[in-house]
Amino acid sequence: MKDKQSRHSWHKLRRKQRGSQQEDLTSMKEVAEHFFEGVEKLLEVWVGPYDHRNQKSDLRNIPREALDELMEDAKCEIISTRSSSLVDAYVLSESSMFISRCRFILKTCGTTTPLKCIPRLLGLVKQHTGFTQVEDIFYSRKNFRQPSLQDETHRSFTAEVEALENMFPTGQAYCLGRLNGDCWYLFALDRPYALLGGGRVGPLATPALAAPHRHQPDQTLEVVMTDLEPEVMALFHQSQCATAAEATKRSGIDQLLPGVRIDDVLFDPCGYSMNGLLDNGCYVTIHITPETEFSYVSFETNIPQSCYKDVISRVVDCFKPGKVLVTVFANKSSEANEFARQLKLPTLRSEYRQRDLQYCSVRGYDLVYALFEEWPS
Amino acid sequence: MKDKQSRHSWHKLRRKQRGSQQEDLTSMKEVAEHFFEGVEKLLEVWVGPYDHRNQKSDLRNIPREALDELMEDAKCEIISTRSSSLVDAYVLSESSMFISRCRFILKTCGTTTPLKCIPRLLGLVKQHTGFTQVEDIFYSRKNFRQPSLQDETHRSFTAEVEALENMFPTGQAYCLGRLNGDCWYLFALDRPYALLGGGRVGPLATPALAAPHRHQPDQTLEVVMTDLEPEVMALFHQSQCATAAEATKRSGIDQLLPGVRIDDVLFDPCGYSMNGLLDNGCYVTIHITPETEFSYVSFETNIPQSCYKDVISRVVDCFKPGKVLVTVFANKSSEANEFARQLKLPTLRSEYRQRDLQYCSVRGYDLVYALFEEWPS
Repeated sequence: MKDKQSRHSWHKLRRKQRGSQQEDLTSMKEVAEHFFEGVEKLLEVWVGPYDHRNQKSDLRNIPREALDELMEDAKCEIISTRSSSLVDAYVLSESSMFISRCRFILKTCGTTTPLKCIPRLLGLVKQHTGFTQVEDIFYSRKNFRQPSLQDETHRSFTAEVEALENMFPTGQAYCLGRLNGDCWYLFALDRPYALLGGGRVGPLATPALAAPHRHQPDQTLEVVMTDLEPEVMALFHQSQCATAAEATKRSGIDQLLPGVRIDDVLFDPCGYSMNGLLDNGCYVTIHITPETEFSYVSFETNIPQSCYKDVISRVVDCFKPGKVLVTVFANKSSEANEFARQLKLPTLRSEYRQRDLQYCSVRGYDLVYALFEEWPS
Repeated sequence: MKDKQSRHSWHKLRRKQRGSQQEDLTSMKEVAEHFFEGVEKLLEVWVGPYDHRNQKSDLRNIPREALDELMEDAKCEIISTRSSSLVDAYVLSESSMFISRCRFILKTCGTTTPLKCIPRLLGLVKQHTGFTQVEDIFYSRKNFRQPSLQDETHRSFTAEVEALENMFPTGQAYCLGRLNGDCWYLFALDRPYALLGGGRVGPLATPALAAPHRHQPDQTLEVVMTDLEPEVMALFHQSQCATAAEATKRSGIDQLLPGVRIDDVLFDPCGYSMNGLLDNGCYVTIHITPETEFSYVSFETNIPQSCYKDVISRVVDCFKPGKVLVTVFANKSSEANEFARQLKLPTLRSEYRQRDLQYCSVRGYDLVYALFEEWPS
């Protein structure tokens, strides 16, 4: 179901302004006006308690109208939907949302405000789903290119952690990569919380250190790319490709992962989003900000693999980035766990050198972070 | 050679004030006045080029008077000195300094300002040593307990990175551990610099990615402890032990590492510092802030070992801390390298649980960080 294709409303406005301006207006103000922040804020919420015999408790019981209201808090909107038996996938005006039985994923770019969703989301969980606990929250993102353009809540990771700690006082905040360069921030709960009324949480009566969902395999691969090949990025302008399907095919996105049912959107005048669903309930999602001055592509999937070398290589070959940031996040039950614990990430093609490599243990999950950069030519 | 034992001059002043104040004055201001920051700032500078055939170039050629002046920049002073054929070891009013042929280590606690030493130090290197390059700089520390009491340059890691970047524009800054809790900051150069006049540096004519000293094994183990057993800490008050030697013996510090020649100082009315030298040129240094309200002990050594499990256990058994922060930093030539790369740090006694575990690759060095905490009793 496609609702409309008005992605990046703020962006589009700026693009239109750009069209009417002279090329040589390059003051700082103009640069800011011609900018779109591709970097996504990624919010993942797990609720529970998980009980495979109880099929009634389900985040997908939240009504669509309530989700539309929720997206207003985040300053974006739903523009397309696909469902499998295990997950509902939404393309948003700014990136994507995935809702399965006990996991809610909201990934939004631009100047969206996903942290502002949380109280309403928790209220909806309490009202509609039968779940009584927040098992886990993971909030993560790459450093912004222009943090000053963000809403106050998101202007720095310190501000975001403050907002999260106001809701969840015992979270842990990490920075992988360089504080003074490319990096990837993560906030994670260090214990589950009980859902109270009014979108609030409180301590659990019987605190548990390991949430039950952690016995299920869970893994996420993210490949975040910047400084991309302009010829590839050109495909994600409507001037080059008439439809999203054409952009998906000509770029080779359709060949990245086999057996994926694709919901793709090509925005006006440029920009691309794709959600893909697999029969096993896994998802893949790709978001592209193609403008040369601030090109950005993110690839994310929760497909379990014991080695992500091939998929990372295919993604990099497809988009030809100048910089590649890879994170693999896997719990102990996941077949990707060993990959997340091993410190020798597959080297990319010889054009790339590894700038940073880090590992972090996060309450039952193993996380590896690596930054690759093209050698200067 | 012992010069005097006036450690912690600021501290002593505060302690004296405390003596004349009533016990029930516990306003924030009073708390601040009764506080001493045990957390050390650790600055390690490697100069070069290293050439084993050239024995003339040597940091130990810097005259003592010049070192005394240098310490003024850092707001501390030399109070005791020992030398081996490979290293000069200084006990300072606030912690320690070690100078070997091409490595300078300055570790200072309290409200000292070691970053302010760097320009003068580089000038002294240029003037006295024959070295022409800065091969590496590592600046690291745990998060402060009371950052607001620090000099402006050191009030936050952001401020420190800014000061370092003003001198060395291409450094990399990391935070291991939690941005919103216990953590350990590191700034490291990502390339060598040429020594210019006036304590400044510039780009090398022929940039080298790996500094020659990196072919020599190099490793550092740090064990930083807080919330220590008051009965153990009591030993480091002059009211309990008449001499430093007595404190060293009764605490078991003399048994921690065999074959170490110890230079120990017990401060008035409390506090302890120890430098130890081994015949192979290695050092060990221990610094103790024993007051219950802000107890802090650091243990550091560059003794090479393929496994630090035993020494860490001995140190923890000796001081009985509530929290233990361990870092192992080793280059590729070091026998400790595998230990730094392996992600299973030895678990401490069953009283401790591992809160954080991280790994970071830093330009030829491998670094592992772990935080252990006593289980709530």
